[in-house]
Amino acid sequence: MIGILVNDRVKAGKQAINELYNVGYYGRPKGDTLELTLIEAAYLHYKKKLEIQIEDRSLSFEDFFTEASKRQQYFDLKYIVYKDLRERGYYVQPSVTDFRVYPRGGHPGKTPAKFFVHVISERIPLSLRELRMSLEAAHNVHKTMVLAIVDEESDITFYEIRKVDPRGDVKLIGEAVQGIYGRSTFLEDRVVVWDSDISSSLHAEGFYGHPLDADRLQLSLVESGYLLKKGVLEVADMSGTSFALAFDEFAAKASVIESEFMLKYFAYEDLRDRGLVPKTGFKFGSHFRVYLNFKSVDKLPHSEYLVHSISEDYEFTLPVMSRAVRLANSVRKRMIYAVYDNVQCTYIDIGRIKM
Amino acid sequence: MIGILVNDRVKAGKQAINELYNVGYYGRPKGDTLELTLIEAAYLHYKKKLEIQIEDRSLSFEDFFTEASKRQQYFDLKYIVYKDLRERGYYVQPSVTDFRVYPRGGHPGKTPAKFFVHVISERIPLSLRELRMSLEAAHNVHKTMVLAIVDEESDITFYEIRKVDPRGDVKLIGEAVQGIYGRSTFLEDRVVVWDSDISSSLHAEGFYGHPLDADRLQLSLVESGYLLKKGVLEVADMSGTSFALAFDEFAAKASVIESEFMLKYFAYEDLRDRGLVPKTGFKFGSHFRVYLNFKSVDKLPHSEYLVHSISEDYEFTLPVMSRAVRLANSVRKRMIYAVYDNVQCTYIDIGRIKM
Repeated sequence: MIGILVNDRVKAGKQAINELYNVGYYGRPKGDTLELTLIEAAYLHYKKKLEIQIEDRSLSFEDFFTEASKRQQYFDLKYIVYKDLRERGYYVQPSVTDFRVYPRGGHPGKTPAKFFVHVISERIPLSLRELRMSLEAAHNVHKTMVLAIVDEESDITFYEIRKVDPRGDVKLIGEAVQGIYGRSTFLEDRVVVWDSDISSSLHAEGFYGHPLDADRLQLSLVESGYLLKKGVLEVADMSGTSFALAFDEFAAKASVIESEFMLKYFAYEDLRDRGLVPKTGFKFGSHFRVYLNFKSVDKLPHSEYLVHSISEDYEFTLPVMSRAVRLANSVRKRMIYAVYDNVQCTYIDIGRIKM
Repeated sequence: MIGILVNDRVKAGKQAINELYNVGYYGRPKGDTLELTLIEAAYLHYKKKLEIQIEDRSLSFEDFFTEASKRQQYFDLKYIVYKDLRERGYYVQPSVTDFRVYPRGGHPGKTPAKFFVHVISERIPLSLRELRMSLEAAHNVHKTMVLAIVDEESDITFYEIRKVDPRGDVKLIGEAVQGIYGRSTFLEDRVVVWDSDISSSLHAEGFYGHPLDADRLQLSLVESGYLLKKGVLEVADMSGTSFALAFDEFAAKASVIESEFMLKYFAYEDLRDRGLVPKTGFKFGSHFRVYLNFKSVDKLPHSEYLVHSISEDYEFTLPVMSRAVRLANSVRKRMIYAVYDNVQCTYIDIGRIKM
């Protein structure tokens, strides 16, 4: 079988439609011609099913591979992923997001494609904007969005990207203790609740803070901000004025200590309002670990999510994302990114997927 | 027992030396006076062993704690760590790096201190320079350096910091194949070796690269740079000129693709020269995973280290460091930072320690 390299396509004759398309769903038939992408052609060359010519000269695999790398950006990356998927029995077709992949046992004409696969090098930063656009495109046609990240040694890791809508059933502490103003002081970079009763109620019923001792509770900035906003807590300045801080004053002070305070706060408030219990995720390098089924501090359940709050213009650095997902999975949690777009929080779940 | 608050000390009388120092090693006796730090005094106040006065007025715990927070930076953080260590049976004394801590069963006058503990908030970036100075200070007096990181919810994680000198016994591939020049091409962001024999020898004997297929090998940039520098490989430009790249030309091209190329390369070369086998650590979010006892690709051992290459002016972001160490430990590896100071690489091992 002979194909002719023309720009970024390899074109073969009618016989190719029978032997390549009808059997393996390679290329796209256009009349009596089979049009193959450079990637499909390279794979067929490697499989010795296709000879590729340019100006009547036959190209070796090395020559064609080098030539294709000049004609298509990230050719080698995409080839690696294409070959991997084909060799594991998937039918793969080109698409707007690199590849449409059919489910196991399925193929073009029999079943719809299941995955939209987007190939990316670990070196290229991935903007959240781009990720969300790809996610929307895939969702609109009921496909699963998959990122195939190729590392510097050409190993591939597949990630499934999903929108999620986490909900829990933990009641607002406000409903339990509303109207009981706890007295607290904003110290250097955390808040201490001095009253013994409210300290233990906040900790036991809402899993807020960390006991300083049996009588006093330390709260993080997001926790104190939330309880202040919900009217559960009064927060005094360390300067000792009797004036309690308003939420805006508190937020301004907190933002000086932690420049990302508001970014974290929006996700914290949204998670709490959804009936979930977020606690610091410091040990996991994320903003929060999140409990779905908190009942009491004594019977603390496994926390299900790690949540990291990011802004709309966030750029993923892929080794960092990879580490976050890997760590979350190694402790049996889902890695979720919370995005606040000035109106609401949306949640994007990124997890490894075996293809 | 009464102590008087004077600047950043609380001073108590002779009786205190008997009851507080001789029994619990609190404070430092100076003549007939016992001088306590604010942290020691707050702890003794909490334990109801000390009443603290200022101008004949007795301070409540809340008042003293707030007052001490004004007089000493990070007072609350340091108090949390001090209390934690004391309550778990350690004798703790102030030192240049916050605390000197005695080994279990030991105390001042009986045994030397074992740990230098440095307390830091997760929010404060930690410069490598500062870390190395503390490490030197601890090593010079044969102490173990410990970082106590306090997160926003006042949980403490202890890290032991050590200098390490990793060595392996994997022979230089150069010795095996020296003089056999493999031919390869620098494609978009990786290098492909076209020759079948050298491809399999590089992969099987040195665990270089990742097979593109049975005949061809893909190498990462650091791998290709190393093999080029050692005279094992010739690397041609994709433009197809017959000129092989010199190492400097190669490094310049690679640095355009990956701005950190030289930073990674120095560590890669040093690790290889030490008889270790570094491979990409992408899936772990680090530059390299490192094999100590590589024998063959078929019997691949567990990789022992994750190595991340950092420059001398690096600043640790503690949640990021925490994630790196946590992930390394969760896959039974040590987290090691490689620092290249223009002459040599030194290695710093950061691991969690249970105190």
